[in-house]
Amino acid sequence: MTLLLDINGADDSWSPVRWQARFQAELPHVRVARAGSETYTADEVRYAAVWKPTPGLLAQLPNLKAIFNLGAGVDAVLADATLPDVPLVRVVNADLTRRMTEYVTLHVLLHHRRLPMMLAAQREKRWDAKDQWAARAVRVGLMGLGELGRDAADVLLRLGFRVSGWSRNAKTLAGVTTYSGAAGLDAFLGATDILVVLVPLTPATRGMLNRNLFGKLARDGVLGAPVLINAGRGGLQVEADILACLDDGTLGAASLDVFEKEPLPATSALWLHPRVIVTPHNAADSDADEIARAVATQIQWHDRGEPLLHVVDRSLGY
Amino acid sequence: MTLLLDINGADDSWSPVRWQARFQAELPHVRVARAGSETYTADEVRYAAVWKPTPGLLAQLPNLKAIFNLGAGVDAVLADATLPDVPLVRVVNADLTRRMTEYVTLHVLLHHRRLPMMLAAQREKRWDAKDQWAARAVRVGLMGLGELGRDAADVLLRLGFRVSGWSRNAKTLAGVTTYSGAAGLDAFLGATDILVVLVPLTPATRGMLNRNLFGKLARDGVLGAPVLINAGRGGLQVEADILACLDDGTLGAASLDVFEKEPLPATSALWLHPRVIVTPHNAADSDADEIARAVATQIQWHDRGEPLLHVVDRSLGY
Repeated sequence: MTLLLDINGADDSWSPVRWQARFQAELPHVRVARAGSETYTADEVRYAAVWKPTPGLLAQLPNLKAIFNLGAGVDAVLADATLPDVPLVRVVNADLTRRMTEYVTLHVLLHHRRLPMMLAAQREKRWDAKDQWAARAVRVGLMGLGELGRDAADVLLRLGFRVSGWSRNAKTLAGVTTYSGAAGLDAFLGATDILVVLVPLTPATRGMLNRNLFGKLARDGVLGAPVLINAGRGGLQVEADILACLDDGTLGAASLDVFEKEPLPATSALWLHPRVIVTPHNAADSDADEIARAVATQIQWHDRGEPLLHVVDRSLGY
Repeated sequence: MTLLLDINGADDSWSPVRWQARFQAELPHVRVARAGSETYTADEVRYAAVWKPTPGLLAQLPNLKAIFNLGAGVDAVLADATLPDVPLVRVVNADLTRRMTEYVTLHVLLHHRRLPMMLAAQREKRWDAKDQWAARAVRVGLMGLGELGRDAADVLLRLGFRVSGWSRNAKTLAGVTTYSGAAGLDAFLGATDILVVLVPLTPATRGMLNRNLFGKLARDGVLGAPVLINAGRGGLQVEADILACLDDGTLGAASLDVFEKEPLPATSALWLHPRVIVTPHNAADSDADEIARAVATQIQWHDRGEPLLHVVDRSLGY
């Protein structure tokens, strides 16, 4: 039995060689092969663990039983039109969730507490002890109420923020005002001062963070103008609209971890915009050891006939 | 019966006139007078509400029953050698506690997630997707386990940090490794990557944040060098030592909300130090309306013969 790794476009700590060593340690009785670098027999491959897999490669494995994506977002896998019809599993683990909650908490607090203004004052040696509002005066809207959104909501509520959430299907969450579907979107946006985006990239969500949506955010909040925090996927956002809306006051500020094109090109005006915080798609850097362990555990379960967890619904795209 | 206000050195939202209006609204049957601006009869004053009170003023009130300080720290009141021997009450309220927890959470996350490094990379348009460690790899040490320290510990534990605490007297706190007294200080410091200071300023704590103490912090952590976050009082710290320790690597970075002299003088090298975040003593801006309500409630209780809450132990200084 072979586990085939096809891992592309990642940095050193995510090198295919390191992944191979991790998986081999977790699964000593399985042959762990890397696509392109070793000979392996296609019909011996039962499982594949991938990141941005080579289009067409997975279709050549006649006995493939399941594909494990090594991150939370499966948009790059689903982009392969020849993807075989076997279960596609995404990463859901406590470590990734905790890291995303750190990012969301940090950036919500940072805008709430006006840190960019404070840092600008510091550079000019200005002691501006401006009034600060309480967290209960700020409405945080979480777009996406999966594992990530729910965990972030819990911490934001603990800090005293007013939290609402939007999801495709109706969900209820203690302490959170929830909205759902296309019918609930405008009401959700109209009650949101800080919009936190944690939805998957699908044909339905591509480009949804545009001028039309930003124009529906609350304009009567203590922050003056609404704030966008996107830790989902760059394909969700229209960067030209973000820049134009920052400049005409439709948006007050933005924290962006993801971009239409990554790495963000040097020509992008987002880099030096005074009210944009750019981070290099590391909001929730996954712990590769934890992911390898979780995937290995699922492979062992599946071999014993137990069901896989976190299988993607291809009709929804996540 | 008169409530005398003696409020000095505060900004607009804390103006004596606004405080007078607030207290008058809460206590319609009490005469609310401002020191220095109205005639009042000294022997009619039963209560005083103060911020940085004029030395000697309170000693001239023969029938004074209690003094209410309008902030958490009473060091400025206790500095008056003629302070009459009546109960001195400090502010403890949920609003102030929540705001301090926001500040502590924001600044712990900010150093943990290397935001200063990220912002510097952004200014140079560098996409540096460096590895990020998990919160459980970072040891946050809370110096001070009163209301503020305990609330901050709760949120930091929820975020996954390893949390320890030090207090003068032994305390226990679920999930927190606690140390106490002079005997426990070195062990506490040796297990701390990010030191968060929330102790009161007393003769025993003045100047304790010095080179000797910084040199005892953990040096084997993932952050490289330890971080200081002081949201207590400026008198706790020796700023020349902070600067020297940042420059020789004893400290990695600092977030300072309080200073030896406030406003921080333009001549201070802290302003432009690349690894110092200066905020203008607004970590826990109190909601003046909430404080006025809490003080008015205590005055009403005391008039009915009920005990005062949050009375300062003058032998300890807090």
